[in-house]
Amino acid sequence: MNDRRWIYPVALPIPGLENNTADVDRLCASLQRHLGRGQLAVPLALIKRAPHLLRQWGYQAKCVVFRDRETYRLTGMLAPDHPSPPGIAVDLGTSRVVVRMIDLETLKTMAETSFDNPQITIGPDVLARIHHGEKGDAVNDCHRLIISALNDCIRSLSHSCGIDHQDICLAAISGNTTMTHFLLGLETRWIIREPYIPAVNCPGLIDAAELGLEIHPAGGVYIFPSIGSYFGGDLIAGILYSGLHEAEDTAILVDVGTNAEVVLGNRHWLMACAGAAGPALEGGVTKMGMMASPGVIDRIVIDPQNGAFQIATIEKQPAVGICGSGLIDLAAQLFQAGMIDMRGKLVPSKCGDRYGSDGGVPHVVVATADQTRHAEKIVVTQIDIDSLIRSKAAMYTILETLTATVEMTPMDLHRFFVGGTFGSFIRPESAISIGMLPNLPRDHYVSLGNSSLEGASKILREPACFDDIESIRERITYLELNVNQDFMNRFSAAKFIPHTNPALFQYRTGNPA
Amino acid sequence: MNDRRWIYPVALPIPGLENNTADVDRLCASLQRHLGRGQLAVPLALIKRAPHLLRQWGYQAKCVVFRDRETYRLTGMLAPDHPSPPGIAVDLGTSRVVVRMIDLETLKTMAETSFDNPQITIGPDVLARIHHGEKGDAVNDCHRLIISALNDCIRSLSHSCGIDHQDICLAAISGNTTMTHFLLGLETRWIIREPYIPAVNCPGLIDAAELGLEIHPAGGVYIFPSIGSYFGGDLIAGILYSGLHEAEDTAILVDVGTNAEVVLGNRHWLMACAGAAGPALEGGVTKMGMMASPGVIDRIVIDPQNGAFQIATIEKQPAVGICGSGLIDLAAQLFQAGMIDMRGKLVPSKCGDRYGSDGGVPHVVVATADQTRHAEKIVVTQIDIDSLIRSKAAMYTILETLTATVEMTPMDLHRFFVGGTFGSFIRPESAISIGMLPNLPRDHYVSLGNSSLEGASKILREPACFDDIESIRERITYLELNVNQDFMNRFSAAKFIPHTNPALFQYRTGNPA
Repeated sequence: MNDRRWIYPVALPIPGLENNTADVDRLCASLQRHLGRGQLAVPLALIKRAPHLLRQWGYQAKCVVFRDRETYRLTGMLAPDHPSPPGIAVDLGTSRVVVRMIDLETLKTMAETSFDNPQITIGPDVLARIHHGEKGDAVNDCHRLIISALNDCIRSLSHSCGIDHQDICLAAISGNTTMTHFLLGLETRWIIREPYIPAVNCPGLIDAAELGLEIHPAGGVYIFPSIGSYFGGDLIAGILYSGLHEAEDTAILVDVGTNAEVVLGNRHWLMACAGAAGPALEGGVTKMGMMASPGVIDRIVIDPQNGAFQIATIEKQPAVGICGSGLIDLAAQLFQAGMIDMRGKLVPSKCGDRYGSDGGVPHVVVATADQTRHAEKIVVTQIDIDSLIRSKAAMYTILETLTATVEMTPMDLHRFFVGGTFGSFIRPESAISIGMLPNLPRDHYVSLGNSSLEGASKILREPACFDDIESIRERITYLELNVNQDFMNRFSAAKFIPHTNPALFQYRTGNPA
Repeated sequence: MNDRRWIYPVALPIPGLENNTADVDRLCASLQRHLGRGQLAVPLALIKRAPHLLRQWGYQAKCVVFRDRETYRLTGMLAPDHPSPPGIAVDLGTSRVVVRMIDLETLKTMAETSFDNPQITIGPDVLARIHHGEKGDAVNDCHRLIISALNDCIRSLSHSCGIDHQDICLAAISGNTTMTHFLLGLETRWIIREPYIPAVNCPGLIDAAELGLEIHPAGGVYIFPSIGSYFGGDLIAGILYSGLHEAEDTAILVDVGTNAEVVLGNRHWLMACAGAAGPALEGGVTKMGMMASPGVIDRIVIDPQNGAFQIATIEKQPAVGICGSGLIDLAAQLFQAGMIDMRGKLVPSKCGDRYGSDGGVPHVVVATADQTRHAEKIVVTQIDIDSLIRSKAAMYTILETLTATVEMTPMDLHRFFVGGTFGSFIRPESAISIGMLPNLPRDHYVSLGNSSLEGASKILREPACFDDIESIRERITYLELNVNQDFMNRFSAAKFIPHTNPALFQYRTGNPA
């Protein structure tokens, strides 16, 4: 399998009266000698260009070939001396989109950039965007926005690498099911309605031109497959990157982005569930805070002696808000300082002058006006804390429920992968101390960074991995939480800090590392 | 193989929480049970429509599936109660295009129509059109003309059948290599230049939408493959229709349309050559006359006693011109009456008042002014006759040369298929008497009619035949006449009427049957 690659240099026999088969047939014959058994399809866009290009290049070329099981598809032809035949890996996030350009020959990263998903102008979350699409003829607004933004991004990324964006022959895109649907211009209304049916789980390789993506005219766009409406290709990419599907020991992968998605398993089996399908997480994790960016509070230490707050912001800029990992730190520190009780309720007497109330809603001041960019204090309300408590309870309950289905507990895990935007920043110590994550030894936790992007990059770098994707999909058993009887009972117990059974979460003193 | 078909009715399990895979994946799973092994691709256009259609139709549909070896492609979805899922067969002729609509379930012809190839406005023949395409940005003029005319035709044909043209899910198109290139919008300049390289011989199944053909949005257009620049898909379709490739006895197929193409063979091997590749046929057969249409002279009898001409026109209309088969009749009758000699030269003394001369070019009056629509006499000049002699010589020489390569002679053939526009009207007796066709018993000749159209229709009616196409292509050995030493020698001998060896062509007395 290691001889799998994307780029095949070909040198065709020069045509003559004794050898006058057609250009494209000659090209296919040359390629087929490298590829072996299997059908090779050449898109019309490439049939149109091949005669000119082959003559221009002296009947030599670098061909980009996409293989899917027994079939091959030519997704591009580049000059025989093209130094860096590029492919792009895309993490198509609900909030943020990351695009990485990879040299398909050297397998090195050529450039990387990211941008806010422009669909945010339509709605902050998946639900709002889907509802928008149901109005009149707005179903394609989200599609047009993301395609146009991707084109802008790809063009500028190409420019920075000194290549022509039309030389990009292959893209691998991973995103959640709704993002994938918007990308493809598919109807999303049924994703959010029982029984939660996507239009497609396995779109496979799509013509870039048909999609409107301005790369090579014959370019192919591989869309990571999803398992269902609430378990998308981003997590399949994450599993691929983590190697969960190849290990003998059972491990878990938790991906907390817009939703919380969890996969438990090993090389023999995989069990999965998704938070948004559970009744408790609706609007949960999504409200935990803003995206990590300069000025966002991502660490908080509260002195248990004098109640003094010490905040750290990203890039040490004046504070502008708080992100998910900052909120978890805050909750852990507030609890440790006695400023919130086991139910997560603010204790005014302990909060001192950090306590306030606005319209009957209590809050705690996290950053004073002199610490912020906009010179207004930043507060976290009781509502935010309640939301966090529900989210952390849901997360732990998912872990408990999922492990219980295979007669394990969260404490039995020897490897705990944390992926997703949120996962990159979370500090396990804090998450453990509020009962969100199990109290495993610190070195059992592995932060994957942007596992969706890394998974998409992995198939560009190791084309043989492509076969793993289908086998991962086939092995996954999906657990529907909203038809699970035990879930709500466990959830009630997990809504305390750290839990009704605090022995599960041995409290760690000292500052977060 | 007989269970191969285009239409698969499916009834999907209704989605529910316990069975909530995606619409398209559910559809594929249902289809795959019918199809067995092999990959099934669903075009994006259909992924977009499937969720709505499946719900509208209660999760039932008639699916149109195109199979190519180990792969399948869904080319359309129709309502489960759609009475006549239509496909179209197209003979894409240089002069005339014929379109036939076939019910893919009952396999019956629903309607048929034809129209002049609108590329005639650009040039009467392949050469003129290719040259036009080389000017500036005119390369796509021919493409746009034919696509637009096909769309008009398909729309009106659909209307006459009471169906929606967007319900046509499959088209099978056969044409010569240049016509196929124009249809696909491919560069044609290299087709006519040594070493005569087409852009593609086997384009396979093309997306109708990509082509601009306004049938079902996911519709597929199968293009019959060619062997080379001068041996097109129309002849492959003709071979398929004739059954030449399945017979134990060696037979020949002669297709005289714009070019003369000949295939010799049986179920074990096939030898082919094309007239336009031979030096003698250049501009030959093409100039033999006008297309058969009302008023065209297609039969001539000359009384050898008194030299009286008796002409017959198509639909008995006043004469407007003469077609190829009429010219052959004329030459046969002129020779029998002594009005031309063995070299094909007009003999003034024998022609009497039918003889004339204009600008030094002798001619014979075929129809007097009172017999014609435009009240002007119709003449055939010495130049026309010389051209016919070259064409008939080339035809016979091709037959001789081709049979000689397998150590046979034209007289050894037990089955002689005549296809193409011209072949439909030719009378073997006349063609034999001028030495154009070998003197085989009359019942050895089989007129195929429009063999290109019939071949295209055949794969719609018998999808299992699809596999034969590739095996026909693989078995064909193509003989290049312009590198053949014996050709010119044989050609010189064949330029006499009937031949330098008249014993080969026992003269048949009496009127043509």
